[in-house]
Amino acid sequence: MRRKKVTQRRKPLILVTNDDGITAPGIRALAEEMHQLGEVVVVAPDSPQSGMGHAITIASPLRLEPVDLFGNIEAYQCSGTPVDCVKLAVDKILPRKPDLCVSGINHGTNSSINVIYSGTISAAMEAAIEGIPAIGFSHLDYSFQADLTLARRVAYLLAKQVLQHGLPEHILLNVNIPNVPLSRFQGIRICRQAVARWEEEFAERIDPRGKKYYWLTGRFVNYDPGDDTDEWALQHGYASVVPVQYDLTAHHAIAYLASNWKLDGLPKTTRTTQ
Amino acid sequence: MRRKKVTQRRKPLILVTNDDGITAPGIRALAEEMHQLGEVVVVAPDSPQSGMGHAITIASPLRLEPVDLFGNIEAYQCSGTPVDCVKLAVDKILPRKPDLCVSGINHGTNSSINVIYSGTISAAMEAAIEGIPAIGFSHLDYSFQADLTLARRVAYLLAKQVLQHGLPEHILLNVNIPNVPLSRFQGIRICRQAVARWEEEFAERIDPRGKKYYWLTGRFVNYDPGDDTDEWALQHGYASVVPVQYDLTAHHAIAYLASNWKLDGLPKTTRTTQ
Repeated sequence: MRRKKVTQRRKPLILVTNDDGITAPGIRALAEEMHQLGEVVVVAPDSPQSGMGHAITIASPLRLEPVDLFGNIEAYQCSGTPVDCVKLAVDKILPRKPDLCVSGINHGTNSSINVIYSGTISAAMEAAIEGIPAIGFSHLDYSFQADLTLARRVAYLLAKQVLQHGLPEHILLNVNIPNVPLSRFQGIRICRQAVARWEEEFAERIDPRGKKYYWLTGRFVNYDPGDDTDEWALQHGYASVVPVQYDLTAHHAIAYLASNWKLDGLPKTTRTTQ
Repeated sequence: MRRKKVTQRRKPLILVTNDDGITAPGIRALAEEMHQLGEVVVVAPDSPQSGMGHAITIASPLRLEPVDLFGNIEAYQCSGTPVDCVKLAVDKILPRKPDLCVSGINHGTNSSINVIYSGTISAAMEAAIEGIPAIGFSHLDYSFQADLTLARRVAYLLAKQVLQHGLPEHILLNVNIPNVPLSRFQGIRICRQAVARWEEEFAERIDPRGKKYYWLTGRFVNYDPGDDTDEWALQHGYASVVPVQYDLTAHHAIAYLASNWKLDGLPKTTRTTQ
C-alpha cells in the first residue's frame, strides 16, 4: 500500500487576542508560540479589559490602530472589548476566516464560574460562534511577572491538537494552567466546570468629598467535591481543559417546566401601558 | 379531611434590575407588576448598559444613590453594570436574600444567541449563581414607546409561577415577548435556544480629523429550522421561555476529547519565559 503523498498546504492563519490588553506579557508569549505553528495576526484591546465578559460596544464607535510590538508579527490595538476585537478582526483585518483563534494567556484564573465573567473566554467564544476553532488560555498567577514557561508549552500542544483534529461543532476550550514549576506538572486533564461561586463583600469607603463608594472584593468558594472538575485538576498540578458550549439551554429542565407549570391564559387584569 | 390552615407568610422580596438603565419604561412596568406580588426593591444602572454581557467592574469603584422614581417603591441607581447592580443589591441594600430577581423588561430581543451579549440576562444569571430564582424579560420592540401591555402580563404570570414553584437548581429563565397585540398572542412556550448568530459588518467612517472609526452593525441569521426553538415561538406569536444554565461545560464533548486527543507529555522545546 502506498502512502498518500502529503500535499503542500498553506500555513494555518491564527488570530491571537486577550483581555489584559495588548501590552500584557501573556499575549506576547502566546503570539510567539503560535508563530511556530502558523501565520499570526494579533488584535487585542488597547487597555486592560478584565471582567468584561461577553460585552460588546454598541453605543460608541471603535478605533483600530496597527502597532509594532511583536517583531515580525502583524498586530493591531482596538479601543473595544475582547469580543469587539474578534468581530473587527474577522470583518476588517484578516484576509480569510482564521483556522484558529487563541485568547490569553490570561494573567489569572478563568476556571469554574470565572468562565462567565472572563473577557478572555468570551473572545474565544465569539470566535466559536463565528465557526472558528477557539481556545482561551489562563495562568493561575495574576502577576505580569509570572513564569509562563509551562503555560507556553501547554498552549503550543493544545493549539497543535486543534489545528490537527479541529473541535466538535459549537465547542471552544477553556484551558487553565496551574502555578507550578515544570518539574511538578502532572499533565493535562479534560474536565467539567466545577460548581463554585464568588461570595461578594464590597469594601465601602468615603471619598474626599464625603461620599460613599464601593470596591468589588470577594472570596471564591468551591462547593464541588468532584475529582472530574477543573478546580480539582488545578489543585493537583494538572492543566484543566473544559469543553465549553454557548448553547445555554438547560435541556433537562424543558420537560420539567412544560409538565409542572400552568402557562395557559394570561392574568385577567386591566393593566395596560401606553 | 380538614384543610390545612394557610399560615401567614411575609411578602416575597423581589429585586428588580435591567440593562437599559433606571429611566427606561421597561423597568417601570416590571417594578409595577412585581409590586402586585411582593415587596419590591429596584437597583439598576444609572445609564444604558446594553450589550454589557456578564461584565463586572473590577478596576474602578462603584457609586450607589437612592432615587425617587417609582412612587412608593424603594429604588437605587448604580454606576456599574447590570451584574454589579445585583451584587451590590445583595451585599449592601437588601435586608435578606430576595425570593426572586427579575431583570428587564428589556427594550429589544434577547432570544437565541443574544442571550450571550445581554446585560439583562446576565443580571438574572448573577442572581441565579447566588441562589436566587431569577427571570430575564425582553420585548421584541426596541422602542421606548413600545406597548408593554402583553409583556407586563407575561411577566406577572411567570413571576407568580416562580414564586409558587421555585426553579430547578442552577437554572434561570430567559423570557422573550413577541411584538403582537394581545388579541394575536398565542400563549407561552417552553423552548430551547435557537442556533443562530450575528453576521457582522462594521460600518467604516472618517472622523473630522481624518481618522477611521467603526460602528458595529450586523444581520441576525437563524440557522435553526426546529419548531421547538425560541425563534420559532416568537415568529408564531408565542412568548418564549428558555431555561438557561451557567454550567457551560459541553458534557458530551468530554469523552470525545479524552479518547481522541493525545495529551501526554509536553513539547520538548527549550522555550522559556522569564
